Amino acid sequence: MTVTKNNTEKVLNINNVNPLIKNVEYAVRGKLAIRAEEIRTDLEAGKGNYGFSKVVSCNIGNPQQLNQAPITFFRQVASLCDNPDLLKKENLPLVSQLYPSDSIARAQTLLHSIGSVGAYSHSQGVPHIRNTVAQFIQERDGHAADASHIFLTQGASSGVQTLLSMLTQNEKSGIMIPIPQYPLYSASLALYGATPVNYYLDEATGWSLDINQLTESVTSARKQGTDVRALVIINPGNPTGQCLTADNVRDIITFCHEQRLVLLADEVYQTNIYEPEARPFVSFKKALMDHPDAEVREGVELVSFHSISKGMVGECGRRGGYFECVNLDSLVLEQIYKMSSVSLCPNLHGQILVDLMCNPPRLGDASYESYSGEIKTIYESLVRRSKKLEGVFNEMEGVSCQAAQGSMYLFPQVTLSDKVAAAAAKESMAPDAFYSHAMLEATGVCVVPGSGFGQKANTWHFRSTFLPEEHLFDQFCSDLEKFHSSFLEKYRD
Amino acid sequence: MTVTKNNTEKVLNINNVNPLIKNVEYAVRGKLAIRAEEIRTDLEAGKGNYGFSKVVSCNIGNPQQLNQAPITFFRQVASLCDNPDLLKKENLPLVSQLYPSDSIARAQTLLHSIGSVGAYSHSQGVPHIRNTVAQFIQERDGHAADASHIFLTQGASSGVQTLLSMLTQNEKSGIMIPIPQYPLYSASLALYGATPVNYYLDEATGWSLDINQLTESVTSARKQGTDVRALVIINPGNPTGQCLTADNVRDIITFCHEQRLVLLADEVYQTNIYEPEARPFVSFKKALMDHPDAEVREGVELVSFHSISKGMVGECGRRGGYFECVNLDSLVLEQIYKMSSVSLCPNLHGQILVDLMCNPPRLGDASYESYSGEIKTIYESLVRRSKKLEGVFNEMEGVSCQAAQGSMYLFPQVTLSDKVAAAAAKESMAPDAFYSHAMLEATGVCVVPGSGFGQKANTWHFRSTFLPEEHLFDQFCSDLEKFHSSFLEKYRD
Repeated sequence: MTVTKNNTEKVLNINNVNPLIKNVEYAVRGKLAIRAEEIRTDLEAGKGNYGFSKVVSCNIGNPQQLNQAPITFFRQVASLCDNPDLLKKENLPLVSQLYPSDSIARAQTLLHSIGSVGAYSHSQGVPHIRNTVAQFIQERDGHAADASHIFLTQGASSGVQTLLSMLTQNEKSGIMIPIPQYPLYSASLALYGATPVNYYLDEATGWSLDINQLTESVTSARKQGTDVRALVIINPGNPTGQCLTADNVRDIITFCHEQRLVLLADEVYQTNIYEPEARPFVSFKKALMDHPDAEVREGVELVSFHSISKGMVGECGRRGGYFECVNLDSLVLEQIYKMSSVSLCPNLHGQILVDLMCNPPRLGDASYESYSGEIKTIYESLVRRSKKLEGVFNEMEGVSCQAAQGSMYLFPQVTLSDKVAAAAAKESMAPDAFYSHAMLEATGVCVVPGSGFGQKANTWHFRSTFLPEEHLFDQFCSDLEKFHSSFLEKYRD
Repeated sequence: MTVTKNNTEKVLNINNVNPLIKNVEYAVRGKLAIRAEEIRTDLEAGKGNYGFSKVVSCNIGNPQQLNQAPITFFRQVASLCDNPDLLKKENLPLVSQLYPSDSIARAQTLLHSIGSVGAYSHSQGVPHIRNTVAQFIQERDGHAADASHIFLTQGASSGVQTLLSMLTQNEKSGIMIPIPQYPLYSASLALYGATPVNYYLDEATGWSLDINQLTESVTSARKQGTDVRALVIINPGNPTGQCLTADNVRDIITFCHEQRLVLLADEVYQTNIYEPEARPFVSFKKALMDHPDAEVREGVELVSFHSISKGMVGECGRRGGYFECVNLDSLVLEQIYKMSSVSLCPNLHGQILVDLMCNPPRLGDASYESYSGEIKTIYESLVRRSKKLEGVFNEMEGVSCQAAQGSMYLFPQVTLSDKVAAAAAKESMAPDAFYSHAMLEATGVCVVPGSGFGQKANTWHFRSTFLPEEHLFDQFCSDLEKFHSSFLEKYRD
């Protein structure tokens, strides 16, 4: 083979990059988010002529970017681990005026087991921290967890990607994902060349999940020759916010047993539960261990993902999380360990936060009151804001919005006119992308069009967080209302 | 398709996992390292009967695990960013007794640009920190760098993987890698299904790199139908420790131009330079910008990787780094950005350390003296330890070891007898793996067998860091000497 290419062409160009990468789409940080960044840069430089003074990023669950305060105890411990000089005897008199005793004690315990936050740890995560996670799971579910089957990760995303990659034997390997779904799933399946097998959530019944829908979906995919091998459940839902009932969770496990599917449970919103009486969170691990059929309990292969980025913790920027494997083949666990070791280890600051999230201050500890007060404040505010924004959406002409039982998002459906469809087509956009772009340019609010998550044909949605600060929330809602009615006027058929 | 599999078999098992993952090998944390972990756990629990009291991990460049102290200024700034309460007006009187003024000022600057270390940043990295990196490159090379072509990463590894993945169009896509090489490269190529195209470094001339060797390698691979599209250079070398001359660096760039290859420059050991007069570090970016031929300067596509894990910084556990792209196609840059956005962002603690590494205290700053003193202490100790261990290896019977001009490793060649080969074969091991296992069991020292990096047929090596603490170094060396001579006695032909 000789080198005959035109030398003015780049060696690596868009026509010869990895075609799987070209297929990847990730709307949460897609075109609209890039445009939002441009506007933000303009505004900071005092450039451009916008009808608003700042960009409000509702495209991503990033609470601290919108000034949600971090949990004080967590940051105290983390800072002591970062600067162990503060723990030296000669500094403690001063330091104990700045730090409560339990944060000092926790940092000492962590550093004793970690050594230094600047050292690579065990590739699976610090053993002490994996024990903390196992204890947390046991307290949550009433069933033991095995620390050697827990892997700490850089956020839930990297763990999800490891498992999806592991499950991809070839292009016929099929993974069931909900529609609408969080686009990490479709993006990763595109990247690994696996086949997404869609199942639909039912909007009319609060985005509920119907086992018959799952059965139809797997049956039809298998008929077409797809080797369906896993089911992804996002509970509480993203972007949909539903929280599954205990019966539903049990039935999904039975379904996985009957259909021989690995169950991937994305449970990162497990503490974002806004109707705790009617719809409490039931983990798949607990439901599996409580399943009446021993063959199911000992058979169904389950991987459950959790994260420090969500809940009331909101430490997205640290990139921390874990997954727990149940009933997985030991040789598969070895492969997962090997892949973790190629990345050396998850970052230690993320690992530390996993320890703190899973083992927060307890009643009687010096920081207990401040900790529980902070959690309560954030939680109650999330409830208020979710209800308020849901109400605002449902008041809008042509908009209907299911309640958020959990997670950080609302996913309203918007009826868009033929005129909108025509105008969007001119710009080579889906109508909901066109709507969302118009919203950004008019208000500075950045959401994600429903087409980024998948939706039933000819329905249009967008996903918005309800994370803008409470004292700005009325303004935020009224900006959206004004935009929506003027948009409707402009494009009325 | 009906479900006919045996229900006692796991859905996901070793016979149906992703076959590319099964092919991945990563010796740095392979079997030997797993055995070392077992022994460490035994020793901590007071179990087992070993002839030593602790495991010494020389298998991985992890200085802080072996008690190298972190740079004080770096940790001070990081801890203030973690706990911004310390920067509140009412706390500053106390805090300024614990922190020098420049660490407080730097934390304020960083937090002003970041917001919170708990928030996702721009997927490419915080713009302010990318500007710091661009400034650092300009100071290093005397040529400007474009912050919009710099990507912050979770350690160099994740950046390398992004680029190797991008370069893999199909299984014919070939990437040139050195032999011996750092196994991240072979592992990643196996994972993406690309073809490794080996070129050999010449041990006899200090692991030098001969352009004729490169030409032969690319020509032969192309004759066999491989679409060779990139060249990986590790400089300073890992595991080999060589540092390329300025002429060599320039010639490699010319070669890439002539052969139409993207140049991936792994320059993570750029400050680990132990013969600074004879062999200073010359970055590929500088050599490219200084190249006499304008067509080369404006044509050769270069990606250079750097990390906070190495040098005198050694902050491995934070997972931070960056890569700079030069002359890359803008549509390819968009694809890289998209893939970064799927992972949301590199962790903020790694990003902060990149800022600090690239912009350390300057002459006149409050922390300058302590900073430069700490760097000097670590550096001089690394030089002493590298020379000492090199001497020890060269004194051993049947061992020859090239000097470390750079990096953190020595890669001695060991002559092993036929009896060793026979004993190793019985255990299904390569002779150097057998030797390294015996070393671990006898001394607690964990190294990596040469077979994990690749080596010329019928030569045997191992890679060892020279990172054990200086006050333990004599004992470490004498343990190795004793083991080596008794091993040789036992297996003398």
